[in-house]
Amino acid sequence: MAPDIEHLGDQIAYLMDRAAISDLIISFARTLDTKDFAGYADLFTEDGIIEVPVKLPDGSFFRHVGREGLAELVSGDGQRTGLARFAYTHHLSANHQITIDGDTATACSYAHCIHRLSDDPADVWELGGWYFCELRRTENQGWKFANVRLEKVWEHGKPEDHG
Amino acid sequence: MAPDIEHLGDQIAYLMDRAAISDLIISFARTLDTKDFAGYADLFTEDGIIEVPVKLPDGSFFRHVGREGLAELVSGDGQRTGLARFAYTHHLSANHQITIDGDTATACSYAHCIHRLSDDPADVWELGGWYFCELRRTENQGWKFANVRLEKVWEHGKPEDHG
Amino acid sequence: MAPDIEHLGDQIAYLMDRAAISDLIISFARTLDTKDFAGYADLFTEDGIIEVPVKLPDGSFFRHVGREGLAELVSGDGQRTGLARFAYTHHLSANHQITIDGDTATACSYAHCIHRLSDDPADVWELGGWYFCELRRTENQGWKFANVRLEKVWEHGKPEDHG
Repeated sequence: MAPDIEHLGDQIAYLMDRAAISDLIISFARTLDTKDFAGYADLFTEDGIIEVPVKLPDGSFFRHVGREGLAELVSGDGQRTGLARFAYTHHLSANHQITIDGDTATACSYAHCIHRLSDDPADVWELGGWYFCELRRTENQGWKFANVRLEKVWEHGKPEDHG
Repeated sequence: MAPDIEHLGDQIAYLMDRAAISDLIISFARTLDTKDFAGYADLFTEDGIIEVPVKLPDGSFFRHVGREGLAELVSGDGQRTGLARFAYTHHLSANHQITIDGDTATACSYAHCIHRLSDDPADVWELGGWYFCELRRTENQGWKFANVRLEKVWEHGKPEDHG
Repeated sequence: MAPDIEHLGDQIAYLMDRAAISDLIISFARTLDTKDFAGYADLFTEDGIIEVPVKLPDGSFFRHVGREGLAELVSGDGQRTGLARFAYTHHLSANHQITIDGDTATACSYAHCIHRLSDDPADVWELGGWYFCELRRTENQGWKFANVRLEKVWEHGKPEDHG
């Protein structure tokens, strides 16, 4: 719910922050789907954390602290699981539930994620879940993610066959 | 479309109402998915009505008038169909089309609803449809649902096997 | 990201434009799903262009220039592919990424499109993709689409059997 803000200036600031945070959540999806992994990493604070319930080849779950190395990890390579190997991904993002408290904020958002496993557009791995985000307003670059955690709720398809 | 509002104060009030109503629609989804059925009932006016095209064991369709008893009905129990029995649900909400007229409003929104039927995250019942909502601005608690009606458009899976 | 706008009036104008453009994208979906094809055509400028990666019976792809004739083309008839023949369609729209520059704007949005192929609500053709839109602010009727192009990312079902 929108907070009880008396003054118009505060209301405009609230609406602008809300729009900027929603845009950040959408940029998260868009940078992944355009394979702009450097742009993706840039959405985080320097000490930002990402946690995703996907198992890596060494048995651990995907978790990374800090912007450095994040682009490479999300992209992946021959040794590691990542998104670069997919022909297409499609991260549909909705239900942006945003709570702002000064220069910090939290957001819960829903995602329906498609990963195309081959040239056949029907060969997809789908998963749905919610992202829990903590955000910080930075000095010169506006809102950034301090923490993003994906909780998986359902899935279709066969990710394990594809790494 | 945004109305042709001349004065900035009216425009801000319009944008704040629009944000609050969108948040209410998202809270509808979120309270269901977190099984906060008391919080769900609290989104309605005291005389609020909910209508869902799901058949109950007695052959009637799910319809309830009034906030009282709503949480129990949506939750369900051994005798009745409800959402508590699902391992997870995931109500993705989008296309919020909101029309505000003073202290009343209407909204049409789209939903893609996932219900996990077992421990297997691939064993899901999916349905899509649109919610038609009538809203009222209450004295002390902001916007509430006076009426919510779900029209089902498509589905996958096997709900009838699961009640 | 929201632009760095100093003055409150500019910020309100930005937020109102953003809301209006988001509503236009949602009306695109809603007019299709209610088979209001005249209303759909009216969302475009007179010289508006639509491009969709669906093959027509003559082997060409769906592309149309100008508002005139657009409603008939999207509706379809015995000779042509169109949406009128479907029992239901459901165009879920999300990830509205909007960039405004005076009286023009661009938008990228995500869609999950359902087409019901028969009376069976489980007999669906699904496709997901993104819409790339160019918009113009018109003299008397607000924002309109100057260009809409759908890029298909994934699909399920069997459109070619029903095309």
